[in-house]
This record gives sequence, C-alpha cells and structure tokens, in this order.
Amino acid sequence: MENHELPFTVKDVAAAQKRIHPYVRQTPLLASGQTCAENQPVYLKCENLQVTGAFKARGAFNFVLSLLDQGGAPGVITASSGNHGQAVAYAAARMGLPCTVVVPEDVIAVKAQAIRSYGAKVEYAGHTSTDRIERAEQLATQQGWVFVPPYDHPWTAAGQGTAGLEILQQRPDVSVVLVPIGGGGLISGVATAIKETRPEVRVIGVEPELANDTYLSLQAGRVVDIGANHTLADGLRTSHPGDYTFPIVQRYVDEVVLVSEQDIENAARELLFRSKLLVEPSGAVTVAALRQLDVQRAGTGSVVCLLSGGNADPNWLATLLGNPVVGQGALQ
Amino acid sequence: MENHELPFTVKDVAAAQKRIHPYVRQTPLLASGQTCAENQPVYLKCENLQVTGAFKARGAFNFVLSLLDQGGAPGVITASSGNHGQAVAYAAARMGLPCTVVVPEDVIAVKAQAIRSYGAKVEYAGHTSTDRIERAEQLATQQGWVFVPPYDHPWTAAGQGTAGLEILQQRPDVSVVLVPIGGGGLISGVATAIKETRPEVRVIGVEPELANDTYLSLQAGRVVDIGANHTLADGLRTSHPGDYTFPIVQRYVDEVVLVSEQDIENAARELLFRSKLLVEPSGAVTVAALRQLDVQRAGTGSVVCLLSGGNADPNWLATLLGNPVVGQGALQ
Repeated sequence: MENHELPFTVKDVAAAQKRIHPYVRQTPLLASGQTCAENQPVYLKCENLQVTGAFKARGAFNFVLSLLDQGGAPGVITASSGNHGQAVAYAAARMGLPCTVVVPEDVIAVKAQAIRSYGAKVEYAGHTSTDRIERAEQLATQQGWVFVPPYDHPWTAAGQGTAGLEILQQRPDVSVVLVPIGGGGLISGVATAIKETRPEVRVIGVEPELANDTYLSLQAGRVVDIGANHTLADGLRTSHPGDYTFPIVQRYVDEVVLVSEQDIENAARELLFRSKLLVEPSGAVTVAALRQLDVQRAGTGSVVCLLSGGNADPNWLATLLGNPVVGQGALQ
Repeated sequence: MENHELPFTVKDVAAAQKRIHPYVRQTPLLASGQTCAENQPVYLKCENLQVTGAFKARGAFNFVLSLLDQGGAPGVITASSGNHGQAVAYAAARMGLPCTVVVPEDVIAVKAQAIRSYGAKVEYAGHTSTDRIERAEQLATQQGWVFVPPYDHPWTAAGQGTAGLEILQQRPDVSVVLVPIGGGGLISGVATAIKETRPEVRVIGVEPELANDTYLSLQAGRVVDIGANHTLADGLRTSHPGDYTFPIVQRYVDEVVLVSEQDIENAARELLFRSKLLVEPSGAVTVAALRQLDVQRAGTGSVVCLLSGGNADPNWLATLLGNPVVGQGALQ
C-alpha cells in the first residue's frame, strides 16, 4: 500500500516514532463512555494530554531531531497561531537551539506567554497563516536560521502521524478515526500511518463550516484559498491546505465533514463536564462530528475521535460555563 | 504484614479488584510534567476519569456485587453529598436494583440531577453526614432495603482500595502516595492495599484545614467530631472519621497534612490549565499538598497524587476563571 509518489510513507512515520519517543508521550486512548451509530464505543485519543498541550509536539520534535541528524542549524524559527509555536519553542529548548516564533496579531494572550515561558522570542505579523509564514521565512533568511513549517513539510507531517500509529496499537478493533483538519499536517500524517497499514480503517477529516478550505479544495480537485476566517477553532483557521499535505489528503482521506460553531462549543462543554477533559475548540471538532456518523460511516468497530489539543483560552472557557451540561452524569 | 484485627485485608482488596473489574476503569496514571522535593516526578492517578466521575464507583460496585453474592436485597439506599450517591445509583442500575439516595439540602444541583439521571430517587435531609445517614438508615428499615454506607464499611473501603493496588501495578517505583481524606473510606482501602504489599511506600493523607476531623482525631487518639464545616472541598465535609476506617488510618497512614482553601483552588486551576484535567476541589487537595513535600516526606521514587473526582460545580468553576494561570505552558 505504500506509494512513493507521496512525500513520505508509513516507514517515515515509524522512524519518527522511534526518534521522538524519549521526548513525547504515548497519550491515553480513553473510552468516552458514549456510543454512536449502531451502539459502537467511542474512544478519545487525548493529544490535549500531550507535552505542550497538543499533538504539535510530535511534528516539532521530529523536525528538530531530523535537522540535528543532518548537521543542525544556528537556530530555528516558525510561524504559528499558537500550539505549533509552543511545540517548536519547547523542542528547540530541549535540544539547546535558539528559537523565534511569529504569531498573528490577534493571538490568544496565554499562548504567546506560553511560547515565551519555553524560552523563545515572539514576533507579531498580520492575521493569516500566509502573513506570518512570509515574515518567518524572511527572518529565517536574514538570520541564517531554519524555518520549521507548521504543517507543510514531510518531517512535520510524519511526526504528527505517530498519533495514528499509536491509535492502531492501542485499539486494534478501530473502524473509523476522526481527525481535525487545519493545514493538513496532522491528518496527512495520521492517514498515511493508518491507510498504509490498515487500508480498511476509515479516516474522516473534520473542518469547521467557517474554515472549509480542505472541503472546498477536495471538491475543486485543487488547492483553494478561502482567505481569513474567524472560526472559534483558532487552530484550524488556515486559509488553504498545504502543497505537500493536500495530495495525501486527496489519496487517503475518505471524506471531510463540516461542523457548526455551536456544535463545536457543545462538544467542548460535554468533554469538560462529562469526560473531565479540557479540550480547545479545534480539538473538539471530532466529537462535534459524531452526530453525523451513521453506521455506513462508522463501520462495525471502535470509533476514535482525535482530540488535538487542550490549550484553551480562559475567556472562551468562561463563555462555556454560561450553559453548563445539566441533568447528566459523568462518563459511564 | 496482614493484621486480622482490622476489618479487612489486602486479600479483600484483591478480591474486590477481580469482582468489580468488568464494571469500572483502570484509570490512567499520568505524568504531571512537574516535579517536587528533590526533582522527583509527580504522577496523577486520575479517578476523575473513573466511571461516574469519581473513585466512589469502586466501593459502590464492590458493595452491590458482594450483596448480590450473599443473596441480594429488594433495593439499596444510601446517603451522600454527591459522588457516592451517583456511584451507588449507577451500580444499582447496572445490577437492576431499585435505589434511593439521601442528599444534604445544600447539595450541588448538578450532582442531584446526575443521581436522578442514573435512575435513582433523591431524598433531602439536613446538612451533615450524620443527618443524612440517620435518615437513610430510617428509610432502609422502613422499606427493608439495604443501606450502602458511604465509607464506614469493609466492602466499601476494600472497593476503594483497588485504586491503591492499581498505583502499585502502574508505578512500581512509587515512594509516596497522597490521598484525600473525607470519611476515610478511600484512604483506609488504599493504605491497606499499599502497606500490606509494600510497607516502605509512604501514605500521606490530605485534609482541608476547614475539615480537619481526621487530623484532630489522630492527635487525640480517638474519633473527634468537628460538626458542620464549609470547605470548598464538598466531598471532604465529613464531621468525623468512620469507626471502621479510623483504626486503619491510625495503623497505616504515615501522616496527615492540611491545605488551605486558597491552595485547593490554585491546585484545581493548575490541573485544569496545565494538565487539562477537570478535578473537583476535593480531588485537588493532593496536588495542593505537594508544596509541603520535602525530601524526607517524598522518599526517592515517584510521587503519586490521587485525584479523587471530577464532578465539579460549574458555578465554582466559573470563579476559577477569574484568575487564570498565565505565563505558563502546558504540561511538559
């Protein structure tokens, strides 16, 4: 099932798993206590419990360690709405490399503070992913540092794919995996790991209705740019899928479903009060998509929702508490 | 190390583990990413991720299943500030037994609603544990049902002790375990499991300063009743340690430390924003106690904080968000 036209294969994901193993966590796969479709159990792959609070640590460590394997660099620089920036800052610090992170001007304050707490320098630029990637690449050229792409690089995406290998190892009866789509680094890695190992497992991507760039690109058969958007799911506000990642999504992702802002908020609230997990809106989209899973989509085995991160904005969290889940117990 | 003067031994805890295994979770033991004392790693035993959202499911299933082994009953009744009530309601429902739960008049609304959602009937009585236990025992006598004690019974406490066995299995290098103390059911079970298996592991109990009944009882050498109290940690508001559990605490618990209301709130906030776990105040006391751990208390191995539950009041949670953790990253 390998295909060498694609920029990386499951072998690269397996190599990444060995490489990053000392630095990241095998995150727990928890029973959600709920079922969907034909009474199938739902499991939560808890990347909110990953180091730095999101799956991004996997790709960041794989990139930085691969770079060091190839001779290193005087420093690394990246562009990120938050989680990737934290992950690169942390990985660089662990490896003793200087680091600068370019963030959007409307970045969530605690995310910029967290980046600084890991020892990196923060630079501000524009509002779209294009704005900040351009600024970061410019700085990289000026300083002779290496730019760490947030998603559109085989090292980054292969690193994220290690979450997919873990799902197969932790839950061999899995029949469908739901994965959030931002730029496509996570889903291209996870889909490569899963489809090149167990092609019968369905991989479903999830996007907010307000940030449906991959959904539209798949329909168009080419990369479509939707410009700036303001979904609550700030980690999924990319304006277009990546050049490296999009062909992988085209080949391996079975379908993309869209979720409303209200469904995202309800899912995050349910995860907090019933499952006792803090999940940021971008991470909750997969649980928001569960209600769209009929038996044809879910298969006959376990359903896994990948929760991509937990670095929630406290101000957003406060709005959740206006409508707490009532009349329901905790996970069963 | 067994002692047959005590109401149960580690053998009863091991039997409980087999008995309740199909119905409860082996909860994850997560690295907190923090260290204490001499740079020792801290682990979190996540009973907030237990079915019904708290460790109480262990004792409730052990009681109900032991009762059924001995011929059963027409129904069960209990008294609880919330989590034990939810657990008994859930265990009874799973086993097809009718159930009534007596709660204090100031019970957190979502907890009473959760009890009803599991199919049990809710009765209100007074404010102290004594008030509601008396009412429940009265109802039990009237109806011929069996009263399920919240903590002061060998079946209940042996069931809770299964969390201690899991800690030894999951983290063989453990040198100290911190456990919240309410009525003493959890700590007497956990301490029995640990001290009768590995007596060199320290067991430290944690109480709020405002609900220091076990601390005072240990000093006095007898059960002391402190009356009603209003610690934020509503699961630890018992007015006195249990008759069955106190001798076990006297024998096996190395020491009891006290934590302030402010430290409890800070610990819960840190668990939410850094560890991404929703933990109720009663469950956060063990993390609140970490700053009191010097190297003499912590030993040389891993430090385990038992997080007893996650059924947090949304109104209390809203107060936490007034002072979010800033300038710090997520777990590392």
